[in-house]
Amino acid sequence: MIYLDNAASTPVHSKVLEEMIPYFEERFGNPSSIHKYGRQASLAIQNAKKRIASLINADYQEVLITSGGTESNNTALLGVARKKNAKHIITSSIEHDAILEPCKQLQREGFEVTYLPVDRHGLVNPADIEKEISHDTCLVTIMFANNEVGTIQPIEEIGKITREKNVLFHTDAVQAVGKIPIDVKNLKVDLLSMSSHKINGPKGVGALYIRKGVEVNPLLLGGGQENGLRSGTENVASVAGFGKACELAEENMGKNIERFRKLGKQLISRVLEEIPLSTLNGHPEKRTLNNVHFTFLGVKGEDLIIKLDENGIAASTGSACSVRIQKESHVLKAMGMSHEQITGSLRLTIGIFNNEKEIDETINVLKKVVRELRAISPYKEKYRF
Amino acid sequence: MIYLDNAASTPVHSKVLEEMIPYFEERFGNPSSIHKYGRQASLAIQNAKKRIASLINADYQEVLITSGGTESNNTALLGVARKKNAKHIITSSIEHDAILEPCKQLQREGFEVTYLPVDRHGLVNPADIEKEISHDTCLVTIMFANNEVGTIQPIEEIGKITREKNVLFHTDAVQAVGKIPIDVKNLKVDLLSMSSHKINGPKGVGALYIRKGVEVNPLLLGGGQENGLRSGTENVASVAGFGKACELAEENMGKNIERFRKLGKQLISRVLEEIPLSTLNGHPEKRTLNNVHFTFLGVKGEDLIIKLDENGIAASTGSACSVRIQKESHVLKAMGMSHEQITGSLRLTIGIFNNEKEIDETINVLKKVVRELRAISPYKEKYRF
Repeated sequence: MIYLDNAASTPVHSKVLEEMIPYFEERFGNPSSIHKYGRQASLAIQNAKKRIASLINADYQEVLITSGGTESNNTALLGVARKKNAKHIITSSIEHDAILEPCKQLQREGFEVTYLPVDRHGLVNPADIEKEISHDTCLVTIMFANNEVGTIQPIEEIGKITREKNVLFHTDAVQAVGKIPIDVKNLKVDLLSMSSHKINGPKGVGALYIRKGVEVNPLLLGGGQENGLRSGTENVASVAGFGKACELAEENMGKNIERFRKLGKQLISRVLEEIPLSTLNGHPEKRTLNNVHFTFLGVKGEDLIIKLDENGIAASTGSACSVRIQKESHVLKAMGMSHEQITGSLRLTIGIFNNEKEIDETINVLKKVVRELRAISPYKEKYRF
Repeated sequence: MIYLDNAASTPVHSKVLEEMIPYFEERFGNPSSIHKYGRQASLAIQNAKKRIASLINADYQEVLITSGGTESNNTALLGVARKKNAKHIITSSIEHDAILEPCKQLQREGFEVTYLPVDRHGLVNPADIEKEISHDTCLVTIMFANNEVGTIQPIEEIGKITREKNVLFHTDAVQAVGKIPIDVKNLKVDLLSMSSHKINGPKGVGALYIRKGVEVNPLLLGGGQENGLRSGTENVASVAGFGKACELAEENMGKNIERFRKLGKQLISRVLEEIPLSTLNGHPEKRTLNNVHFTFLGVKGEDLIIKLDENGIAASTGSACSVRIQKESHVLKAMGMSHEQITGSLRLTIGIFNNEKEIDETINVLKKVVRELRAISPYKEKYRF
């Protein structure tokens, strides 16, 4: 099986698993315990936080451990908004549901939310943010890289604007971490969400970078772990694994980016050349190099995925981070794509374990199944396949 | 090292780890993905839910997966209260902080919370609950077994009252699961919290039983996983591990209870006999058999733990589920214990891997360190040690 759905989830790296193993049967203590087992566990958390922080140039005390990207995003939005008196939030129309749904919740609680449009490449215009910020704005949240089409937003420009205007800036960097060097200090980001299982770490753990001095209300209340910001016994093995995944991502960043660039280029250029009526969606350059998002006119993305699956290739139509409901992508819609273009879309996301041979095989299978599906397409006449 | 802090956390069972391993490097798919990897992961979640449900005689569709006991408790309290129009909650004064803190949060949101007293054994009086229930009561939450002293509440009687009065009943069963046979149908419980790492499963995962028909607001918003009740990519490996831990707990319930009974009895009878001025706290019979909670007059619990740790025994003063702050136990206070009694308390909690030899060794060490500490105690004169 060729796995090209790395934006949905990734295999755990063997070195990550190796790091986790001792914390199951041997060093299984509760980090709050005073005895040796507790101290071991507590130290493991601290060491992991240092590795996580290092990947984004933060201080380890600025790292809040969560149960994943969704909790990180929820904590950032609900936690900042409910803390502040200001009642206005700015976001974009192409955010992940883990941003959009908390925004809707805040609207129910009396907040006003501005959903900024994007251009056809999926880019937010920083000038729009500047224009929309008022004295009542408590938070700007714009994703770093889009989970469907991979478009990278002008985070540095946005950070400059928000810092000047003295408004907090959060970015959902779940799809950007490990694919782009990130420096929260340079970018002037105040809060940043990360997920472990998107960078070959275990599922069920993530982090929220909270810049020193930024105040956030906790979502989970209880024993007061994580300085009162996230109660609940720490998930020691997974945190250790996440830390290792961050260390590996930092060490291998250059090598991984080179792999993504090469394999992505191979995939894009050959598909656009060899499959007629195919287009690349998202920004041609400002995109995560591991993301490839096509439209094949006249086919249904769902049919394509099933056919690819039958042929040993794991792919996706877009976001896998929501339940299997057949709703039209709000991202592609916001980019101005037509119903037909959206329907015919396919996302292939490259991982650190993919190789050239797999990409070649994928292109060959893709050519075959697109041809097969077009042969029985209701659009057959229209496009004269 | 002899580990007697199993109420704080437990080692992962080798069979649990074995169950988890394939989900890291091989079956690493996102359960929301349509392809083979996704279907594998989705199936793993379902199978685990069946095992979890079986342990408490629930239906697997009544099992909501969470990141642990704290999230389960938070979801039950905040989720039910924010859904209902009624504004009154009944709880006890000896609940875990993961109940008490959400209660305080609800008070800030305008709810009224009744904190019921307990007797000197830590028992709630069901008649008090009956008396306090009004037409404005939306939820009664009483823990199953106390995490410090092990006292088991009259859950069946409470369930009868709440069902008759048509008020929802939640119980934090984190310390009871696996130690007492639990049948949510017989007990007429509407919501029940479970934690994986207290029953030799991995940390970072738990469950909330929600009886069919009971409506709860989600805490985490996003992709709509878990029928919209808990967004975020499912923690597949840990859920699988938790499922296995539940299966093992169910299979070995009788054997484990026998072990707890025997070792607990050995520990209690010898300590009370051989160490002067020692008492057993909590209820003498209505207690989880793995919990032993002593007071040794004239010593400080913290000193005792450090001494025990130095002598190779991991123990606790009470709750380890809160950060290392030296605050007096609200549980022991509510039971009417004096400052001095509280200060001198020690919790030893037996696990499924402890044996007779370890208990003997613990008693011998305990005798020695209590003697040593009493020799330098400021209460030396008072008690004529």
